[in-house]
Amino acid sequence: MSIGVCYFPEHWPRDRWEEDVQEMADAGLEYVRMGEFAWSRIEPQRGEFDLEWLEAAVDLVGEYGMQAVLCTPTATPPKWLVDERPEILQEEADGTVRDYGSRRHYCFNSPAYREETRRIVSKLANHFADNPYVTGWQTDNEFGCHGTVRCYCDDCATEFRDWLRDRYDSINDLNETWGTTFWSQHLTGFHEIDPPRETPAGHHPSRLLEYHRFASDSVVAYNRLQADILREHNDEWFVTHNFMGQFPDLDAFDVAEDLDLVSWDSYPTGSVQAKENPTVDEYRAGDPRQVGLSHDLYRGALGKPFWVMEQQPGDINWPPHSPQPAEGAMRLWAHHAVAHGGDAVMYFRWRRCREGQEQYHAGLRKQDGSPDRGHADASRAAEELFDLEPVDAPVALLHRYDDLWATSIQPHSPDFDYWDHVGTYYRALRRRGVQVDVIPPDRDPSGYAAVVAPSLHLVADDLADRLESYVAEGGHLLCGIRTGEKDPYNKLPDAPQPGPLADLLGATVDRHETLPADFETRVTYDGDTYDYRTWAERFDPDGATVRGEHTGAVDGTPAIVENEQGAGSAIWSGVWPGADLADALVESLLVRADVERTPVLPDGVAVAERDGYVWVTNFTGSPVSVDLPAGTEWIVGSNPIDGFDVGVTDAGLGAITVDTD
Amino acid sequence: MSIGVCYFPEHWPRDRWEEDVQEMADAGLEYVRMGEFAWSRIEPQRGEFDLEWLEAAVDLVGEYGMQAVLCTPTATPPKWLVDERPEILQEEADGTVRDYGSRRHYCFNSPAYREETRRIVSKLANHFADNPYVTGWQTDNEFGCHGTVRCYCDDCATEFRDWLRDRYDSINDLNETWGTTFWSQHLTGFHEIDPPRETPAGHHPSRLLEYHRFASDSVVAYNRLQADILREHNDEWFVTHNFMGQFPDLDAFDVAEDLDLVSWDSYPTGSVQAKENPTVDEYRAGDPRQVGLSHDLYRGALGKPFWVMEQQPGDINWPPHSPQPAEGAMRLWAHHAVAHGGDAVMYFRWRRCREGQEQYHAGLRKQDGSPDRGHADASRAAEELFDLEPVDAPVALLHRYDDLWATSIQPHSPDFDYWDHVGTYYRALRRRGVQVDVIPPDRDPSGYAAVVAPSLHLVADDLADRLESYVAEGGHLLCGIRTGEKDPYNKLPDAPQPGPLADLLGATVDRHETLPADFETRVTYDGDTYDYRTWAERFDPDGATVRGEHTGAVDGTPAIVENEQGAGSAIWSGVWPGADLADALVESLLVRADVERTPVLPDGVAVAERDGYVWVTNFTGSPVSVDLPAGTEWIVGSNPIDGFDVGVTDAGLGAITVDTD
Amino acid sequence: MSIGVCYFPEHWPRDRWEEDVQEMADAGLEYVRMGEFAWSRIEPQRGEFDLEWLEAAVDLVGEYGMQAVLCTPTATPPKWLVDERPEILQEEADGTVRDYGSRRHYCFNSPAYREETRRIVSKLANHFADNPYVTGWQTDNEFGCHGTVRCYCDDCATEFRDWLRDRYDSINDLNETWGTTFWSQHLTGFHEIDPPRETPAGHHPSRLLEYHRFASDSVVAYNRLQADILREHNDEWFVTHNFMGQFPDLDAFDVAEDLDLVSWDSYPTGSVQAKENPTVDEYRAGDPRQVGLSHDLYRGALGKPFWVMEQQPGDINWPPHSPQPAEGAMRLWAHHAVAHGGDAVMYFRWRRCREGQEQYHAGLRKQDGSPDRGHADASRAAEELFDLEPVDAPVALLHRYDDLWATSIQPHSPDFDYWDHVGTYYRALRRRGVQVDVIPPDRDPSGYAAVVAPSLHLVADDLADRLESYVAEGGHLLCGIRTGEKDPYNKLPDAPQPGPLADLLGATVDRHETLPADFETRVTYDGDTYDYRTWAERFDPDGATVRGEHTGAVDGTPAIVENEQGAGSAIWSGVWPGADLADALVESLLVRADVERTPVLPDGVAVAERDGYVWVTNFTGSPVSVDLPAGTEWIVGSNPIDGFDVGVTDAGLGAITVDTD
Ligand SMILES: [Mg+2]
Ligand SMILES: [Mg+2]
Ligand SMILES: [Mg+2]
Ligand SMILES: [Zn+2]
Ligand SMILES: [Zn+2]
Ligand SMILES: [Zn+2]
Repeated sequence: MSIGVCYFPEHWPRDRWEEDVQEMADAGLEYVRMGEFAWSRIEPQRGEFDLEWLEAAVDLVGEYGMQAVLCTPTATPPKWLVDERPEILQEEADGTVRDYGSRRHYCFNSPAYREETRRIVSKLANHFADNPYVTGWQTDNEFGCHGTVRCYCDDCATEFRDWLRDRYDSINDLNETWGTTFWSQHLTGFHEIDPPRETPAGHHPSRLLEYHRFASDSVVAYNRLQADILREHNDEWFVTHNFMGQFPDLDAFDVAEDLDLVSWDSYPTGSVQAKENPTVDEYRAGDPRQVGLSHDLYRGALGKPFWVMEQQPGDINWPPHSPQPAEGAMRLWAHHAVAHGGDAVMYFRWRRCREGQEQYHAGLRKQDGSPDRGHADASRAAEELFDLEPVDAPVALLHRYDDLWATSIQPHSPDFDYWDHVGTYYRALRRRGVQVDVIPPDRDPSGYAAVVAPSLHLVADDLADRLESYVAEGGHLLCGIRTGEKDPYNKLPDAPQPGPLADLLGATVDRHETLPADFETRVTYDGDTYDYRTWAERFDPDGATVRGEHTGAVDGTPAIVENEQGAGSAIWSGVWPGADLADALVESLLVRADVERTPVLPDGVAVAERDGYVWVTNFTGSPVSVDLPAGTEWIVGSNPIDGFDVGVTDAGLGAITVDTD
Repeated sequence: MSIGVCYFPEHWPRDRWEEDVQEMADAGLEYVRMGEFAWSRIEPQRGEFDLEWLEAAVDLVGEYGMQAVLCTPTATPPKWLVDERPEILQEEADGTVRDYGSRRHYCFNSPAYREETRRIVSKLANHFADNPYVTGWQTDNEFGCHGTVRCYCDDCATEFRDWLRDRYDSINDLNETWGTTFWSQHLTGFHEIDPPRETPAGHHPSRLLEYHRFASDSVVAYNRLQADILREHNDEWFVTHNFMGQFPDLDAFDVAEDLDLVSWDSYPTGSVQAKENPTVDEYRAGDPRQVGLSHDLYRGALGKPFWVMEQQPGDINWPPHSPQPAEGAMRLWAHHAVAHGGDAVMYFRWRRCREGQEQYHAGLRKQDGSPDRGHADASRAAEELFDLEPVDAPVALLHRYDDLWATSIQPHSPDFDYWDHVGTYYRALRRRGVQVDVIPPDRDPSGYAAVVAPSLHLVADDLADRLESYVAEGGHLLCGIRTGEKDPYNKLPDAPQPGPLADLLGATVDRHETLPADFETRVTYDGDTYDYRTWAERFDPDGATVRGEHTGAVDGTPAIVENEQGAGSAIWSGVWPGADLADALVESLLVRADVERTPVLPDGVAVAERDGYVWVTNFTGSPVSVDLPAGTEWIVGSNPIDGFDVGVTDAGLGAITVDTD
Repeated sequence: MSIGVCYFPEHWPRDRWEEDVQEMADAGLEYVRMGEFAWSRIEPQRGEFDLEWLEAAVDLVGEYGMQAVLCTPTATPPKWLVDERPEILQEEADGTVRDYGSRRHYCFNSPAYREETRRIVSKLANHFADNPYVTGWQTDNEFGCHGTVRCYCDDCATEFRDWLRDRYDSINDLNETWGTTFWSQHLTGFHEIDPPRETPAGHHPSRLLEYHRFASDSVVAYNRLQADILREHNDEWFVTHNFMGQFPDLDAFDVAEDLDLVSWDSYPTGSVQAKENPTVDEYRAGDPRQVGLSHDLYRGALGKPFWVMEQQPGDINWPPHSPQPAEGAMRLWAHHAVAHGGDAVMYFRWRRCREGQEQYHAGLRKQDGSPDRGHADASRAAEELFDLEPVDAPVALLHRYDDLWATSIQPHSPDFDYWDHVGTYYRALRRRGVQVDVIPPDRDPSGYAAVVAPSLHLVADDLADRLESYVAEGGHLLCGIRTGEKDPYNKLPDAPQPGPLADLLGATVDRHETLPADFETRVTYDGDTYDYRTWAERFDPDGATVRGEHTGAVDGTPAIVENEQGAGSAIWSGVWPGADLADALVESLLVRADVERTPVLPDGVAVAERDGYVWVTNFTGSPVSVDLPAGTEWIVGSNPIDGFDVGVTDAGLGAITVDTD
């Protein structure tokens, strides 16, 4: 396991570099990421390249025994380029141009920008092709950040038309597939298609879904363009991209197919502020379930260890509030990442930057170059962490961006949120320390003891067949609301929900509804009564056993069913469960699938097993106690585990109990 | 009384049509509305018409003993037309084009679109001129939906100039009438006039009012263009339009002058979500006072029975939340509409649509064609309802769009809302079961025992004369806040409020103020103390008797006055009354005018008399008891009336008392 | 001291003017402001001037013994001018044109509009150059109102480039000074610079700060253009401009350098509604601390008496709510202004206007010409007020627009607000009746016993030197959060906060954080514990004495330090103090500087000394008692002082105690 750092030598005097690099090496760091956003230093004017400085920095890193990860600088085309070719800028749905002045000011579908990208990436790849200290490349930076996946410019219009021409036999095939009779939306040719610009009322949901897919595919193609050039120059380099948490607009699974390594940027005290009412502890260290879901998503993307390419190093500038992280939080996050299958944790950045948009963002070092708290945390993590096999997760959680997009296009309630709903099930699994692979539903689930599919919304026959086989062969499946409601093109099938999954789940949906918070929303499950929220389906069982029922005005209407099929079983919840119901549903699944687990863990405490070791990471400010069985020991830390501290033991997951005092 | 349905045969396989139509006839339906939004199926390419399918559907409807209502398809011009003539698109005040992709993507003032409209409407009218099964036409659909009454394009600029040239003798007449000395707003010619586009500060209120009038008149003219063509082809057809509830931008009275029948689209569980905190019962069935006000508005528009052209058939897609309607609600709404003077209730739509923007909108049938709950409710309503004479209302409520516009342009408080204020008086009348005609103030009020005029804001001499005569001849008038504050061009007259109404009301306004919710806002009235809200006027009585006074800092200042004039009387309230004060003011008016009424009804229970029958419609989830006098009986239902149920009796209104248990 | 009024003769019939002017004179008014917004009456068509009416009005004012203040009419170019030269319109950051239809529809950097401005101002100045009744001129009206300081049009782009060319030696100087390496923001020439238009992410803070400075400077230059023309024609005229309260976008100190007299527009019941929860008393009369801060800012601008150019005359139209002012409030405000150093109070306007955007704005007279409440208040104030020497304030509060802009560009918390933070210290000073000069930090502070510098954010060596000398020579300084964090170009210096002020303050900042309201935010100070809010710094003392410490998780960390230097001292608070802590900090400062003051005053009661007289202005609805020492007396009013009333005494400030009962 490795600790690394992101470094911007171009921000500092050249005579400081060696001191910096030496201190990195002294701190036990192994990787240094460089070159990001550096286009205007690499090519100050068109055709005048200066790669000497970057090469010198790479060599210095190598000389001190570390390896360099380089970045393509395409997230920030320089002003001279924008002025020469202003058509690379994006346009918003209302026609507003997104101008130069920050970053990500280019359209993925701009032929001009693709040409410029080929030019600069080739230049860099060629220059460093034989450099022994460059181990791999990061393409661009955080694709889609600041809402830049979806553009509405004329280049996008042209590409969207071609993309559709490839997917449909004819315009009539498209008319039929989308269903364009509604509101007179028939098209007479692909030339009539535009991006979904500003309109009086809402767009056609099939058109929107296809535009979301197209926009994501545009990024995939743009990334592939870079990956291909890099590999042409040196096929031993790894190619990675640094994704962003639970980012909704870009299909990370699709991008990952062109990568050797998946990485993501983790800012726990920033992302937690997207939650409704973070606790003070969460403001100080983040929510381990929220961070863990991203770890497991990006581990799931390629089914192998991931990197944290940017790890929060201290206080940061971009969330609403900027509290100081708790003492030790920067070390805690590194352990947590490794426990979830991370193989490297790269802190962002070496030193607080004195200029530009991120001056209020800490580094491992302060603005004057002296060590900040992150420096001590990073070097301690580097010392404590050791090499490990990949995570072997017993449970898969199915996630698909198409379902996210379709349900976001028609949320049917201001309170519906795809990730929040997925998170309800994820949290229940993680509250018992179970490792979870987040994978797309088109992947073979047969290796997993249990599969949780919160919202398989768009369902075609092949998916239904795959899940039927899984269950028939002994798999255990848990499905949630909105399952099987639509076909893959966001159209209602003739058959009632869950469409092709009706046989497997043993029931259909009679009707559904969304309810504001002031409604009483309760169901029974196995004799107890539980709260649910926002969404309710009323089932017509057809073969399944009723396990839960609605209460109140429609008392006794089936709400949760279970269907045994072959050697396995399927549970289907027609409500968005509260935490207690999610726990009951998940526990029942884990019992049936015989998955090793802990008793319910305290909020804010995460337990995870990797390669025979168990991590107990305490994201709360209060100590917790963990008694180990005889013959096992603490590898890192000891009992009790202090607030914001970590323990690593060789005791098995099933032997672990965590208590608050 | 008739029940009908909206049907889109073009959405379904042709071999299904006859089964559908037969089931409509079996359910007792009498009318089938078709053709709405079908332009791209009627004219798939320019000049290639296909009307065969629509004619076949009409004939099928006729063969099963029902009648067809056809719609012009102009709310959704096809993409080929938009691409040929993009100048038909609307523009927002900031210049953003409202693009193709939903509906209503055309400007009412576009010469190009008027030409296209003439072409398609003539084609349709000509084709069906002799078809015996077509009984009438709906023009377009929901004029102005999605904020499309007001457009800021260059065609609108041209038309606005011409519209003003017609209304003013000269540009100096306009300068004088608006008062353009303020902020240097003199114009040297009509060519200097633009639509009120985006500006640093607020627009001139006279210019805005005239633009609101012009925009509404543009729709009136556009509707007339269609109505004239339809009548040319068959003068036995009725021409109607389906209006929207308490829609603010379009003067429904003006449009109605070109119609034979007024209809509107009623979605009780959707519209109620515009209220601040709907109750669970209201989420399930709507608020009968809110729905009733729209019934009475559209009945008042032509002074004769209206249709509900779209009646909510079950759960719907467009409000924030989409709860299932209560059991029986779809039947309840039909009875409620008929009690308020509806002669036909058309459910929208026959079957849940599988494609496009409204997939989450129920029909009488589910997406698979099987009956949904609405089907049973609709057929039961069809069975229960019987033919009736029109409603004969004893009270008129004066409403004028110009007053709505002027007070919305200058609300003078974030809490002022025209319809909410009007509704305060309307609710007080309906809490006692009194039928109310909502009519414009330029109509002769002499047939009404009492007249309520909540905000006659823009007052000229002729209106004052009409009301003076009404009162002199024994009428009883109740006026509210903001009365007579402005002249018809939104300018202050020299004379203090209420301007020309000062003699009739016997007082003037010394000053007014608007107060946020944390102020104590109380007045006395006939010895009791009541709450008011938002707006307060302090009166100088001049002939009138003081009936109510302000409390607190200006204790004793007159707030409510009464003026006896000839055989009648006028009460004037200078505050926006709370429900209790509104009740006291209205009860006093009804006593004086000797209007038959019930004791105060429970919230959510509506009572209405039509043609000697009284409907008790229970929009709550709890039963209510109604004791009938000897010799009277229940025609529909019986005592007690269950939650969401209805009773119809031949007992007189004055004999009805409704009790909750 | 003088009372005056704003008059718009062009709004009223000519035969009314003499009656109006006579009544002004009878009320004791001395100044009449006219001509504002009158361009379309002065030049109805290009080149056709009509100045006869304005001259007649001026002469009438003079004949009745009063003096005229004229305004240039440039805030409202007529439509004919806009149609001829539409390039004068401003553009928003997203390219939207701000169109004609309200006011301020011109760009300060438009060469076309500067030409038009020269033309009309010269015409007016020339016409009235010899008129004996014109005493001075107001340039334009409320520069920057409605967000018009910052424009994004092409003229602004051109001017911004030239402005930068003047400030920087070369583009590389600019690159270095801003720090453009970050995110590839190097520029190859000044021609690459644009206004900061709409972008995907945030702009470079140095570029933004410079654009804010440039935009403010554009207004300064535009004002100077007018002032120069006026002075060329008659150098005895005073030139003033009417500023707006605590307006953030325009550097009033810079504009003032071209003025002879500073004036501002005071609307206490409007501005108070920007506060979070105004009390009922504040809705009725405003907050004397909020109004007082603006008085002291505009007095500070030129260091001499100011005018209230527009004084609220009664209820107004533009705040959210429009309650009636309390009885006597219009008189109270005049006394309060004079106590703070105002020499004239001009009520806005004579008579409620019958047309256009401000019909709901009171005048001293009602719309029918009869006296409104303001008339009585104004004439009573005219009678009571007497001539006075300027205010002599013992304390300076340092305020700089550059600090406001920099901290607004990077507030680092949704709860940070520059003026709110400044106000915390100002209120503490005024709660003890201390007169405060609000001055820029580049002014010599040596005459003040104490200096409060809430947020000297951008600090260069010369400023540090000036403050060091001040303290060394016996001055007492109080500094707050964010002090010395940035260099003058919004870049972090190498050295830790407070940069060049580290010696003077005797400490540096180890780290800072921003905290949402649900955190416990408490510090000790001199043994007591106090609340703070939003922002916290943790100090490393280096020579200073620790006077306050953080509590909770970082218990004992220094939060407030004091440093004695030479004959003086510096206190530095690293937290945004609550009112109690601010009071303790300020009291300690005043004690040390030996400043005369009262005991803590009740909220809503203001005490101020001018020229040996003390004003007690009661902005609450309840009476307060003030006992005078023997030998002193009440010049105006007497004890007790009623709600919304005023007392003036010749007792000294230190002898005054105000008690609520
Ligand atoms: Mg995909
Ligand atoms: Mg009208
Ligand atoms: Mg300045
Ligand atoms: Zn694009
Ligand atoms: Zn238009
Ligand atoms: Zn400009």
